[in-house]
Amino acid sequence: MRPVQLAVIDLGSNSFRLVVFTATGGEWKRTDEIYEPVRIGEGMAATGELGQGPMERALSAFDVFAHFCRAAGLGLDQVDAVATSAIRDATNAEAFLDRARERSGLPVRVLTREEEAHYGYLAAVNSTTLADGCVLDLGGGSMQLTQVAGRLETASASWRLGAVRMTERFLPGDEPASRKQLDKLRAHVTTKLERAAWLTECGPRLVGLGGTVRNLASAVQRAADEPSIGVQGQCVSTEALDELIERLAELPPAERSKIPGIKPARADLVLAGATVIRTVMDVGGFAALETTEAGLREGVFFAHLLADEGGVVEDVRQSSVARLAAQYPSDIAHTAHVERLALGLFDETAAAGLHDGDPVERELLSAAAALHDIGMSVDYDDHHKHSRYLILSAGLPGFSPTEVALIAQAARYHRKGMPDAGPMDGLLADKRDLARLDRMSVLVRLAEDLERSRDQSVRAAHLEVGSKRARLRLEADGDTAVPRWAAGRETELFQRAFGRALEV
Amino acid sequence: MRPVQLAVIDLGSNSFRLVVFTATGGEWKRTDEIYEPVRIGEGMAATGELGQGPMERALSAFDVFAHFCRAAGLGLDQVDAVATSAIRDATNAEAFLDRARERSGLPVRVLTREEEAHYGYLAAVNSTTLADGCVLDLGGGSMQLTQVAGRLETASASWRLGAVRMTERFLPGDEPASRKQLDKLRAHVTTKLERAAWLTECGPRLVGLGGTVRNLASAVQRAADEPSIGVQGQCVSTEALDELIERLAELPPAERSKIPGIKPARADLVLAGATVIRTVMDVGGFAALETTEAGLREGVFFAHLLADEGGVVEDVRQSSVARLAAQYPSDIAHTAHVERLALGLFDETAAAGLHDGDPVERELLSAAAALHDIGMSVDYDDHHKHSRYLILSAGLPGFSPTEVALIAQAARYHRKGMPDAGPMDGLLADKRDLARLDRMSVLVRLAEDLERSRDQSVRAAHLEVGSKRARLRLEADGDTAVPRWAAGRETELFQRAFGRALEV
Repeated sequence: MRPVQLAVIDLGSNSFRLVVFTATGGEWKRTDEIYEPVRIGEGMAATGELGQGPMERALSAFDVFAHFCRAAGLGLDQVDAVATSAIRDATNAEAFLDRARERSGLPVRVLTREEEAHYGYLAAVNSTTLADGCVLDLGGGSMQLTQVAGRLETASASWRLGAVRMTERFLPGDEPASRKQLDKLRAHVTTKLERAAWLTECGPRLVGLGGTVRNLASAVQRAADEPSIGVQGQCVSTEALDELIERLAELPPAERSKIPGIKPARADLVLAGATVIRTVMDVGGFAALETTEAGLREGVFFAHLLADEGGVVEDVRQSSVARLAAQYPSDIAHTAHVERLALGLFDETAAAGLHDGDPVERELLSAAAALHDIGMSVDYDDHHKHSRYLILSAGLPGFSPTEVALIAQAARYHRKGMPDAGPMDGLLADKRDLARLDRMSVLVRLAEDLERSRDQSVRAAHLEVGSKRARLRLEADGDTAVPRWAAGRETELFQRAFGRALEV
Repeated sequence: MRPVQLAVIDLGSNSFRLVVFTATGGEWKRTDEIYEPVRIGEGMAATGELGQGPMERALSAFDVFAHFCRAAGLGLDQVDAVATSAIRDATNAEAFLDRARERSGLPVRVLTREEEAHYGYLAAVNSTTLADGCVLDLGGGSMQLTQVAGRLETASASWRLGAVRMTERFLPGDEPASRKQLDKLRAHVTTKLERAAWLTECGPRLVGLGGTVRNLASAVQRAADEPSIGVQGQCVSTEALDELIERLAELPPAERSKIPGIKPARADLVLAGATVIRTVMDVGGFAALETTEAGLREGVFFAHLLADEGGVVEDVRQSSVARLAAQYPSDIAHTAHVERLALGLFDETAAAGLHDGDPVERELLSAAAALHDIGMSVDYDDHHKHSRYLILSAGLPGFSPTEVALIAQAARYHRKGMPDAGPMDGLLADKRDLARLDRMSVLVRLAEDLERSRDQSVRAAHLEVGSKRARLRLEADGDTAVPRWAAGRETELFQRAFGRALEV
């Protein structure tokens, strides 16, 4: 199938960004990106209009983007340039847009607040499992909140509470922030939020988008000494956010990037942003903020890609796994058969009372089985470790970091060794997680053993479980010397995972 | 093109191993592997025959291999089972081979000493740049040495000096080794080597194959605190080997695996093996041992794959880079154009006297350019880091570890950041290497900038170099806004690499 490309240009208040998405069949990925820290909204809080310097920077960046699109052979119908708060609200926006269009030949869609909120909603529901709750999208200029019920957007609103704007108005200058300044900002946000009465009646989950959210999540991850595997799905509790705000406030803006996870380019904006978010959590009664790395640009892309499905992916977790698996050449019949055998053994061990058959664990096992061999595309040697690297590097939207770590470690242990948290130490500290990892690993491993010759000759496996022993019985076409030899090596791990001596 | 598969089964004195090679067009890779630590040669030094226990272990492992081949759909013409020293020399080999064939249906080729040496030679010349010197292949039962001149094998010989055999005869028991024991072993090897008069007249390089060689190289790598990126191309000097032998001799066999890099399964064999190798170096006057990870199995595979070319790859380095690049989907026109532009700039900067135009550096630059984007197949984000991971994980036979590190770091820095040794610290400590890295990085980066829109519109770039400035002039079809914008960001690194202010 011929790949389809779409460039989304996001003219934000803080930065301009061009992202090229390439879709092939049902799969898609980002294939290029250009970033310029334009800060077109700089100074607007005071004047209400785009400043001369920011405008010149913006025009020249947009011009480069337009040249790039032409050179890359992207037609006008393959480029969607959207502008948000700063340009939407500037009193001199028309003049800027005219000049931009004249110089570049590219039209710009100035998004309404509703449209901006809608794209944020699409980004959130397509990159998390959010069904009931709220989406928070904090940019440099504005903040959008969208109520989600049954995965549908049921209400939304937008405020000029962006991080650049709030910094300029409430936390200007080079000094640490005083309690009084922060209180004023909080009071301002609280008052503004009053017009969204529905905010107090959302479902329990809050999903956050945007650079500020990602930076805060990263800082919280680093503070908790968790492995840096990206912030997709990372949860920030009110307590962790309070602590972070306190540390940020004590430092002058220029030094805030000394806190691990805070990027220098955001050091001056992040405190105001954090305070706005914290106030939303307070008013809405949200205990935690879930991070997604998707944002406005992905939302715009989803709206194009999934126009027929209302922009919404049916099952985000399943789609993430399928998308990652499809990225690498693989023996599809083998992988599917390993997954089937592993899930069969999961169900049998659950029925025998060896574990409680948690459907989430079953889903994680299914993902680990589907992805166990992707590392083969790097090299046969250590392909179990390469599978882990590929899973952690690309991420799996819809899964929490702990869940991704479990999938990655189970793939890593699909051949040999006794499973442990390894580099995922900070994420898999809980004993229950380690027990889950043992079960997942041994089941993927047994399934792989039974399918060691990659010929699907073992149709099914059954376990007869006694109080001390578990007997594996194979239904097979042809002989079973290889599967029996292979499965015979798993007795040690099986004993640890299920407390039974495995007999094949 | 339909992939062709070949299973090579290696019935060695120490272990049995089945490796599946899959070739598509000119590219190939290992796609499966089964290993059993059979030790069929155990006890043979005393009796001259295969023991009952070892034989039973061997038959049952071989049986599993045969079942695997059948299940994997490999015809008899796609399986090549070869036996080496232990089986070749055992007085009861026939009985064993009859039983093995009867039970498994698979014929076994017992290699002559000459054939075994030939396959070792093929493995060495196809995985290193060895042109004139000697190949050493040390197994459990025997050792082969092959003289190489102009990449051709000009003489070879084989001795029963394998690591298992020498351990049983000269270093039995559980105690540390005495100087006297080692001296006796050395004297034995020296005497035996006398019949190969050509050994003292080989070219200067010694390339080593086999598990013992890999283990020694790994231990030397770890002792030098070098990053563990595999031992392909690793050099072990006589001094480093002497030190290692001394440390090994002081420990009882069971504790030798405490030395980082020594595998427990080899702990009892490695000292005898190391001493045999060291004696060869002494007699032949070799200053260092170069490691290759290829061995007998690869040699057998090359003989099949390259039957028409006499089993020898024309250019090992070029073929390694091409093979790795072909493993990942890529924009071939873009990559080739980046490589062309980078080499053009290399030649211009050399002509202007900014560096000495070292042809090896040019070759490394070419490799870095060819591989800079392979990480895109993992994820767009951090794809420069993924490129490094993929290069280091798969390795590049024919390049030394330092050269691989330079290629990998240049790929890692093809987008942004100031190049440094990073995790390659132990390999890129030399200032000249860091200067090479700066030049390679900035040239790949400039080439990538000029080809930022992936449309090959910048046909060529020329540098006018003055004493303080260098002016980049572009030959282009169409406009050059994007390349000029992109290249304009490299002034800092260009200044550091070439001591000139870059003007675009």
